[in-house]
Amino acid sequence: MLHIVFLLSLILSTSHATVQDFCVADLKGAEGPSGFPCKTVAYVTSDDFVYPGLSEPGNTTNIISAAVSPAFVAQFPGVNGLGLSAARLDIAPGGVIPLHTHPGANELLLVSQGHITAGFISSANTVYQKTLKRGELMVFPQGLLHFQVAAGKSKAVAFAIFSSASPGLQILDFALFASNFSTPLITKTTFLDSTLVKKLKAVLGGSG
Amino acid sequence: MLHIVFLLSLILSTSHATVQDFCVADLKGAEGPSGFPCKTVAYVTSDDFVYPGLSEPGNTTNIISAAVSPAFVAQFPGVNGLGLSAARLDIAPGGVIPLHTHPGANELLLVSQGHITAGFISSANTVYQKTLKRGELMVFPQGLLHFQVAAGKSKAVAFAIFSSASPGLQILDFALFASNFSTPLITKTTFLDSTLVKKLKAVLGGSG
Amino acid sequence: MLHIVFLLSLILSTSHATVQDFCVADLKGAEGPSGFPCKTVAYVTSDDFVYPGLSEPGNTTNIISAAVSPAFVAQFPGVNGLGLSAARLDIAPGGVIPLHTHPGANELLLVSQGHITAGFISSANTVYQKTLKRGELMVFPQGLLHFQVAAGKSKAVAFAIFSSASPGLQILDFALFASNFSTPLITKTTFLDSTLVKKLKAVLGGSG
Amino acid sequence: MLHIVFLLSLILSTSHATVQDFCVADLKGAEGPSGFPCKTVAYVTSDDFVYPGLSEPGNTTNIISAAVSPAFVAQFPGVNGLGLSAARLDIAPGGVIPLHTHPGANELLLVSQGHITAGFISSANTVYQKTLKRGELMVFPQGLLHFQVAAGKSKAVAFAIFSSASPGLQILDFALFASNFSTPLITKTTFLDSTLVKKLKAVLGGSG
Amino acid sequence: MLHIVFLLSLILSTSHATVQDFCVADLKGAEGPSGFPCKTVAYVTSDDFVYPGLSEPGNTTNIISAAVSPAFVAQFPGVNGLGLSAARLDIAPGGVIPLHTHPGANELLLVSQGHITAGFISSANTVYQKTLKRGELMVFPQGLLHFQVAAGKSKAVAFAIFSSASPGLQILDFALFASNFSTPLITKTTFLDSTLVKKLKAVLGGSG
Amino acid sequence: MLHIVFLLSLILSTSHATVQDFCVADLKGAEGPSGFPCKTVAYVTSDDFVYPGLSEPGNTTNIISAAVSPAFVAQFPGVNGLGLSAARLDIAPGGVIPLHTHPGANELLLVSQGHITAGFISSANTVYQKTLKRGELMVFPQGLLHFQVAAGKSKAVAFAIFSSASPGLQILDFALFASNFSTPLITKTTFLDSTLVKKLKAVLGGSG
Repeated sequence: MLHIVFLLSLILSTSHATVQDFCVADLKGAEGPSGFPCKTVAYVTSDDFVYPGLSEPGNTTNIISAAVSPAFVAQFPGVNGLGLSAARLDIAPGGVIPLHTHPGANELLLVSQGHITAGFISSANTVYQKTLKRGELMVFPQGLLHFQVAAGKSKAVAFAIFSSASPGLQILDFALFASNFSTPLITKTTFLDSTLVKKLKAVLGGSG
Repeated sequence: MLHIVFLLSLILSTSHATVQDFCVADLKGAEGPSGFPCKTVAYVTSDDFVYPGLSEPGNTTNIISAAVSPAFVAQFPGVNGLGLSAARLDIAPGGVIPLHTHPGANELLLVSQGHITAGFISSANTVYQKTLKRGELMVFPQGLLHFQVAAGKSKAVAFAIFSSASPGLQILDFALFASNFSTPLITKTTFLDSTLVKKLKAVLGGSG
Repeated sequence: MLHIVFLLSLILSTSHATVQDFCVADLKGAEGPSGFPCKTVAYVTSDDFVYPGLSEPGNTTNIISAAVSPAFVAQFPGVNGLGLSAARLDIAPGGVIPLHTHPGANELLLVSQGHITAGFISSANTVYQKTLKRGELMVFPQGLLHFQVAAGKSKAVAFAIFSSASPGLQILDFALFASNFSTPLITKTTFLDSTLVKKLKAVLGGSG
Repeated sequence: MLHIVFLLSLILSTSHATVQDFCVADLKGAEGPSGFPCKTVAYVTSDDFVYPGLSEPGNTTNIISAAVSPAFVAQFPGVNGLGLSAARLDIAPGGVIPLHTHPGANELLLVSQGHITAGFISSANTVYQKTLKRGELMVFPQGLLHFQVAAGKSKAVAFAIFSSASPGLQILDFALFASNFSTPLITKTTFLDSTLVKKLKAVLGGSG
Repeated sequence: MLHIVFLLSLILSTSHATVQDFCVADLKGAEGPSGFPCKTVAYVTSDDFVYPGLSEPGNTTNIISAAVSPAFVAQFPGVNGLGLSAARLDIAPGGVIPLHTHPGANELLLVSQGHITAGFISSANTVYQKTLKRGELMVFPQGLLHFQVAAGKSKAVAFAIFSSASPGLQILDFALFASNFSTPLITKTTFLDSTLVKKLKAVLGGSG
Repeated sequence: MLHIVFLLSLILSTSHATVQDFCVADLKGAEGPSGFPCKTVAYVTSDDFVYPGLSEPGNTTNIISAAVSPAFVAQFPGVNGLGLSAARLDIAPGGVIPLHTHPGANELLLVSQGHITAGFISSANTVYQKTLKRGELMVFPQGLLHFQVAAGKSKAVAFAIFSSASPGLQILDFALFASNFSTPLITKTTFLDSTLVKKLKAVLGGSG
């Protein structure tokens, strides 16, 4: 019995230093360059390491016939500081995840249902694309424009996993036509004509 | 037409520097601390960024009624240097992925089919565990012992994504009983009795 | 005199370990995820740490009335492994550096001559922009779309410094219209109409 | 005299930016993924960079005849953010540091007194082990199971230095038998029989 | 119109996760090992990403006939967490930036006006130096002693860019002769004679 | 028996990906920014992870009455890529490790015998120093000038552990007086007088 006491004192003397196994985000704390402050370990439970929010399909009744549901650190505090996060893609037949980048992470795409044509454009202006089926993986390097579209006649589902808890998401059309980017500057920096720009801004809600 | 020539010369003058968008592994080159040398970009194709090998189930006809199929950099050269890799877990009813660690990566588990009870043990000797269903995610911090077992009466499938292209995999039973770890040292450093150690070594093929 | 010998032996015994102060790129070696192999120290000279190539203006006689001259690791081997590189921007009156991203680096812009209006678009679709004069700095976070245009009636010059020796450069128009990105996929993933896409491909040399 | 004033103004104008030489932990602040907030520099003293707590032997009167005394960031705030920490191992004759891992750091072991047999098991299930004497070093890669046992008839002392201020410490026996890991799950995921598990839980205080 | 609503809901559902594009320093928050906490995005403006403070020359009327003006994170909060910062060097004819190191960053020097002789000393005690003219770049690896002196008869201006938001600046003469470093310890650890040390301390304001 | 075969096939299928547990340096390969290429695992032995070279005292019969024996990656290939290395300091009575920096690593000093007065100078020109006895630790942040001198009447021994496999070592006196740093530039950038510089160059072997 004495032995147990000695052993437990050993456990206690070292456990203070072992907190940093994980750092579940305290989302009320101030975010810093490496993430959120850690929730006190005493209040951490199994649920902090689990995210059930991607088990249901997103709503694809919209103009892209697709939905992106994120499980970034803001939704899934358990990934804080661990260099991983996820998103679920639901793409109805004919649907599309428009051209976009993740400024802060590489992406690994896993097709879970249906067929998806996916691709990215390199800095050397080469398109790497492939039609993927269930269980296949494709990797998209950080910061490069890429897309996913439904390839068959049935609904497709995929999961994207990112190399950061905060990968970011910059959708090209929204950056251009749903922002406050002024029409003269858009036309000057993209060579798109202003009539088109104004038309797309009207649809997507942009100003400027 | 002249304009195009000028523009293309601009493209050319900058494209030399943009190779490092990605670094598809040349698996014949010598690995270093940050990964494998890059395949020449001219020979890179879309297939380098795609891994189809996890689309088929692994063979679960074994004593653990389960299979682990890796898509690490050695199988999937496109993830080299990108801090991501994956594995597929097939777990038949009653099957188990035995207690193990990934010494080099955090893990995000996505259940794709069936139900899985998964958990990990922290440095403070607390077990965080949960029974997960299709579409649910769980995160396992780097280097901590964890497990996955089939929770229901039907087959389960899950995908593990890692925060490294070379996460490593140390299965506790294999480390102890399928290695050349000497029986006297095992008993001394684990308090397991030597009869048990010898029995398990006989099953798993250990020596020493 | 004996002392010097002893001291020099001290120098010698430690100098083998100090090579890694720097790692000038051996551009003939195979690049890896962290950069190029190091040139043998014995052959390294002062010139390896100096890049004179940005001292002259780039040629702005082209459709953008601007030029980008890179000093990435491919041009300036001394920055290999040091997390820094540079580029010179020459922008004639009316000129523009079209909307682009650096997938692999943050950027610090220093205006050296004239006036430049510069801006970037965040993931939240907010445009942050400012007209900068000589000696002013602006920072552009990694992977976000940004632009620079001449703001006044005279030529502008700026230097961009990057947080990587290989920042990459993805120019939006070239990615879309000077690549092999198929017109049907462009229109599907950007909502641009195919007539426009074909027209711009004709100008910029795109295929597909 | 005027010169000194000018010089000091130079010192002052730059000193604001130099705080980040070090970041002594303010242990009352909220820990984040990269460590604790920094103590205000004005209150930092020489003592913050010194840890005297490992100069005395740990108490080895326990069932392992050994003691581990940590100098992690929780004990030694000066190492915060510096990627270094330490621990002292005292091992009486016959003593043992049981099989364990550091989930968050590589380890360099320096034998200070006596003889120690140390080893680790790789992911490929190979044991690398050696008997070390005073002044010898051994390195243990992150996350791999390893052990240290007294090799001779006299007391041994060693210092472990880690590549993180929070290396963590997962002792296999405590993870299994001093935690709330349920006996059915232990037996299922380790192939140990339940009688043994219950016996070791009784000794080490485990539940579940 | 309905479409816009759906699209905007998509925008909203993802925007929470995209904060981490940037992390403008809240300088009133507690600094940590990776930098300052982030300013709330709602209060971030274009001005946070711009630093005008280097557009005017520093005052070179001092004993070194030179001035260093920093744009580190303490002056330019927008660089927080981005691994970049800058400084302006003004060097009058005959002026000198004395021998110094940046303990926390590599440096890229860009000459903006005049001629500068710059150099650094490697761990192997080799001096790499060069006289640079306007538009030329030189790189100085982290932590190595280096200097810049005006090379011609006219004023020189240069900008230094660093691979950290907090590069630090240790000026050799100030470290030795403007600090509380005791004269006996200086002479013992540098072989300089105490008469000289005391004379330079009198000029530079050192104590001890 | 069949089970063993199945299990071993599981082992084999995963072992290819587990190489990156460690990366023992192949010192004949070309070093890169992250270290040396890895020795083939099949040829790795326990001896690769052990360094016996610091078990004997260095020769202190020299003008500094001290010796530094490194165990950097060039001497101890097992630390390649692991962010750790070491050195042994032997300091005879009256001996001194002259003022120096490690450009590439933080340092943790462990006193093993005798008494040592050690200190470092911060960027803010503050000296943090302390006299340490056996078993005490002191930490020195990266790139800052620091020193160690024997504090008592008997020999002192200490071990320095670094946060890099290639920490570098720049000894101030050698950088100034044993290099090819020209005397005019030394006097200009340090305010030391040329008579002294020439005298010390004569002793230490400098040129220029």
